[in-house]
Amino acid sequence: MIKLENIIEFIKDQIIQIEGSYQGVEIEGLADLRNRNSKYLDWIHPNSKRPQERAETSKSKVIIANQDVYYNDSMKNDGKILIQVKDPYLTIANIGNEFFAQKEKPIIHPTAIIDKDAKIGIDVNIGAYSIIGSCVIGGNSIIQENVIIRDCVRIGNNVLIKSGTIIGNPGFGFVKNEKGEWEKFPQIGNVIIEDNVEIGSNVCIDRGALSTTNIGYGTKIDNLTQIAHNVKIGKNCIIAVNVSIAGSCNIGDNVWIGPSATINNGLTIGSNSFISLGSVIINNVPPNSDVIGYPAESKELFVRKRLALVKLLKRK
Amino acid sequence: MIKLENIIEFIKDQIIQIEGSYQGVEIEGLADLRNRNSKYLDWIHPNSKRPQERAETSKSKVIIANQDVYYNDSMKNDGKILIQVKDPYLTIANIGNEFFAQKEKPIIHPTAIIDKDAKIGIDVNIGAYSIIGSCVIGGNSIIQENVIIRDCVRIGNNVLIKSGTIIGNPGFGFVKNEKGEWEKFPQIGNVIIEDNVEIGSNVCIDRGALSTTNIGYGTKIDNLTQIAHNVKIGKNCIIAVNVSIAGSCNIGDNVWIGPSATINNGLTIGSNSFISLGSVIINNVPPNSDVIGYPAESKELFVRKRLALVKLLKRK
Amino acid sequence: MIKLENIIEFIKDQIIQIEGSYQGVEIEGLADLRNRNSKYLDWIHPNSKRPQERAETSKSKVIIANQDVYYNDSMKNDGKILIQVKDPYLTIANIGNEFFAQKEKPIIHPTAIIDKDAKIGIDVNIGAYSIIGSCVIGGNSIIQENVIIRDCVRIGNNVLIKSGTIIGNPGFGFVKNEKGEWEKFPQIGNVIIEDNVEIGSNVCIDRGALSTTNIGYGTKIDNLTQIAHNVKIGKNCIIAVNVSIAGSCNIGDNVWIGPSATINNGLTIGSNSFISLGSVIINNVPPNSDVIGYPAESKELFVRKRLALVKLLKRK
Repeated sequence: MIKLENIIEFIKDQIIQIEGSYQGVEIEGLADLRNRNSKYLDWIHPNSKRPQERAETSKSKVIIANQDVYYNDSMKNDGKILIQVKDPYLTIANIGNEFFAQKEKPIIHPTAIIDKDAKIGIDVNIGAYSIIGSCVIGGNSIIQENVIIRDCVRIGNNVLIKSGTIIGNPGFGFVKNEKGEWEKFPQIGNVIIEDNVEIGSNVCIDRGALSTTNIGYGTKIDNLTQIAHNVKIGKNCIIAVNVSIAGSCNIGDNVWIGPSATINNGLTIGSNSFISLGSVIINNVPPNSDVIGYPAESKELFVRKRLALVKLLKRK
Repeated sequence: MIKLENIIEFIKDQIIQIEGSYQGVEIEGLADLRNRNSKYLDWIHPNSKRPQERAETSKSKVIIANQDVYYNDSMKNDGKILIQVKDPYLTIANIGNEFFAQKEKPIIHPTAIIDKDAKIGIDVNIGAYSIIGSCVIGGNSIIQENVIIRDCVRIGNNVLIKSGTIIGNPGFGFVKNEKGEWEKFPQIGNVIIEDNVEIGSNVCIDRGALSTTNIGYGTKIDNLTQIAHNVKIGKNCIIAVNVSIAGSCNIGDNVWIGPSATINNGLTIGSNSFISLGSVIINNVPPNSDVIGYPAESKELFVRKRLALVKLLKRK
Repeated sequence: MIKLENIIEFIKDQIIQIEGSYQGVEIEGLADLRNRNSKYLDWIHPNSKRPQERAETSKSKVIIANQDVYYNDSMKNDGKILIQVKDPYLTIANIGNEFFAQKEKPIIHPTAIIDKDAKIGIDVNIGAYSIIGSCVIGGNSIIQENVIIRDCVRIGNNVLIKSGTIIGNPGFGFVKNEKGEWEKFPQIGNVIIEDNVEIGSNVCIDRGALSTTNIGYGTKIDNLTQIAHNVKIGKNCIIAVNVSIAGSCNIGDNVWIGPSATINNGLTIGSNSFISLGSVIINNVPPNSDVIGYPAESKELFVRKRLALVKLLKRK
């Protein structure tokens, strides 16, 4: 149980207004659609379609919302407390991380195998059965269990790498010889992972072939994703689950790549682009694009083609 | 070598009729198209196109089939034995599991790291290098090697979890802050895996963000699959390899999801639906649907559109 | 620093001609587009669009190219050295592997758990925390860390298996029983991996159900790939990242399967075929095909349909 006063103190810079009396109120958890109870702190997503109705019918005593919700008689009579903030989604995230999420202690598990030449920053957490080469890991980073990080890797500060992920393995590059057999092309480059990056579980990030595989500041990568050799990803990108980025691609900043998208090798995705789930990218994507399909094209063209096909069907 | 008598005794409730003399006959293994030998027990799949021909030309002495196959002179002269059952596919599965599959002994490997507060049922098998939090694991369950199960997970009875799989990790949820950077949305929910579930290798099942990720009774999940936070899957579903189910999806009972299908976040897939391999689902799917494509639509519409395009090509 | 003389001696059978004086020259590394320096050995890819310009503007003193590049005054005045070979891509691969790639020593890590009945060839490397059943592993093979190889597996010589990969697990096969629940179909076959195969990280190769899963000589398989039960893959294939090959498929020789392609169960892919990234294969593919799309069709048809749709749009 957390005192609401303490929560209010923590988010005070974000509060526009508080309605209702919160003295002595305690909070047990955070509400979502399936997880409700009067002692849970509820919150109205900024994109919610009927924010006022959502707030009024909430089972929670305390509700965080933006200024689309006003404190009316119904809420007053129910003894509810309304906390108005600019972005309730961000505020509830801050509250959850501060008061309800477990913090991992910076422990290096005795079964982790760490190269004697590894450079490990302060307050780093390394999980059981992880294998750490003579790499660099910045401060406050968390390496979960069963992770493999090779010699050629340099990881920044505040990086999270989840279990089962393998960083810096030699990539997939072959040359056909005269007998028609595949010979390995050397995979001797490195990997740089900048600060504040998060990498999911069972991800593969291969080292550069001759140069560098680079994940930019603040980029978040979900589970089961592949980042091939020489790929360069910019800042603050979202790379969703099961995405495959083939060799030597160049991804800009603030790019959103949806689940299961695939990007062919050597392509450039411009900054601020949005790639829909399941898209197969076989051409460069200019900045600020919104692409979808196989092969991916602009969403507008994609929709028009689909409508044209439906019309064609009706004509017959 | 297994005595055919013992096999017959084991499946006696399924037998409609036996033709030919089986005294003293022994069985060495189970036949398939590439694995044949007179001592192998052969079986005719209920969907086989020419069941009688398959049975007559089988290299095996003993054949299990349904009533589409009759015991004719050719089989008699060859000294074959025909065992008629209602569903030969199910019968052969029962025989294989009983007589030919190795049974894993309920051993907890000494290298498994198990939280002192974990509640482990009877006859549970936990493989080497697995890491088990203070979770609950029901009786007769098998956790293979290199598996990670977090504190927030509750696993039922008779569950199989294969190697390299990670259950209960925090999911992929972020909120953009005012600097345009991604802040973590709290991932503090749990995971419930009901009885008789099977989960493949290198799978990721994330804990709920604020509530529960739930895998229903008897559902089978193949390798390299992602079940994101808050996903709810019903009973007796088949989730094939490399499927990605994004956050907060609601999958009914008896749903079949083909290999490499992707389901966008927040969608509902009605019970008894069939989703073809590689489909990308971006809208809710009603119960009893048969969908395919990108974006997925009814199979009937998908086929009509394809035919219309072929016609269009011919006109020019 | 490597003496250029030594490199020249090593590749002497491949050299057509050397221009410029190479006495005393030393090489520090291999160049690529992002990794340049006069002491790096540069090379012009046989498919380079302006090979002569690339060679003349290279920052490197020493350049390997084919006969499309000639040694002109500009190169001469810059004191450059041009080494002409038939296939610069292959030559640079040979040089990289010989002089710049680290060679792994054949060590069996003490934390690897190896069955007493395993048959391990000479000069085999087995990484930390790997689990090796009573299988066969041929000479000079490398098994990286956290790999699982089951009893039923036979691995040839010079095979590389990367971290997190699981070979020989029971596959995904079920039969519905009369209660509408899934019962396991026995998964009791084996796996054969022939010589010179390379298998990426976090890959799953399941054992045959009743017979064999087979990976042919010299085939290369990238990360996060699934090879289901009974699949047979021929020689010298390239299976790119995130490919899913469902049960009992039959893949010929020299097949190229692009990233994230999915192949439905029981299909045959003829030798020398090329399957584009993201393709979903639902019919057999004849030898020497070039297929793409969902469902995959010939590239020529795929392109014509796309053009027809664009025309249709313009008409309206």
